[in-house]
Amino acid sequence: MSKNWLDEIKFDDNGLVPAIIEDAKTHEVLMMAWMNREAVEKTLSRRQAHFYSRSRGKLWLKGESSGHVQKVRKISLDCDGDTLLVSVDQKGGACHAGYRSCFYRKLSPAKQWKAAGKKLFDPDKVYGKISS
Amino acid sequence: MSKNWLDEIKFDDNGLVPAIIEDAKTHEVLMMAWMNREAVEKTLSRRQAHFYSRSRGKLWLKGESSGHVQKVRKISLDCDGDTLLVSVDQKGGACHAGYRSCFYRKLSPAKQWKAAGKKLFDPDKVYGKISS
Repeated sequence: MSKNWLDEIKFDDNGLVPAIIEDAKTHEVLMMAWMNREAVEKTLSRRQAHFYSRSRGKLWLKGESSGHVQKVRKISLDCDGDTLLVSVDQKGGACHAGYRSCFYRKLSPAKQWKAAGKKLFDPDKVYGKISS
Repeated sequence: MSKNWLDEIKFDDNGLVPAIIEDAKTHEVLMMAWMNREAVEKTLSRRQAHFYSRSRGKLWLKGESSGHVQKVRKISLDCDGDTLLVSVDQKGGACHAGYRSCFYRKLSPAKQWKAAGKKLFDPDKVYGKISS
């Protein structure tokens, strides 16, 4: 019998693996977050991205507050087996600050981080006054 | 005076930040590796991706053995300030296993990791018998 696919993922000392989320069609990188074994399993079985919050110490479904869920199209593993790439259809924006991608700040020639692109939504309206 | 751009990056307890490397034109995710402050500085000043090897405990220039350097076009920072996205022109392949992207293994419907795409080069010829 072949090895279980989950056993081929190298989780770190905290039982976590970084997961890069990209748009399945454009390949735009949307965010990076951490998954534990349970999050990886649920991401596949429910076809929706789940993560493990290090600050809250619990599993979360991306979009559980905002509705901005990520429908999973493909999961890739890197050569070292310690990073995942998840290709998704993103509903709304991935970023809690209102942008499609969390990587909306670009380094300018003057060495300053400048927000680029426009906001898709108002975080206060989607998440309430305390955005998270 | 505005804040130094490096001070806005949140390095972890080990002084490291994950850096996702994408193809500047196609947005294909090529690899993920770690940078310390010096690696980030050199990546910008030399316009070539530098990383910090956790196993070897030292800075390295991507392509120093293989010649497969990454010319830096853009650096982005995520909303939390704890992950970088570096857009590059990749010479040759990013992956030491011979593929263009390190994420060449895809999860099949039968839940097995299957190599997809073709190798660009023979790792033994590029890196010597012990590929690294």
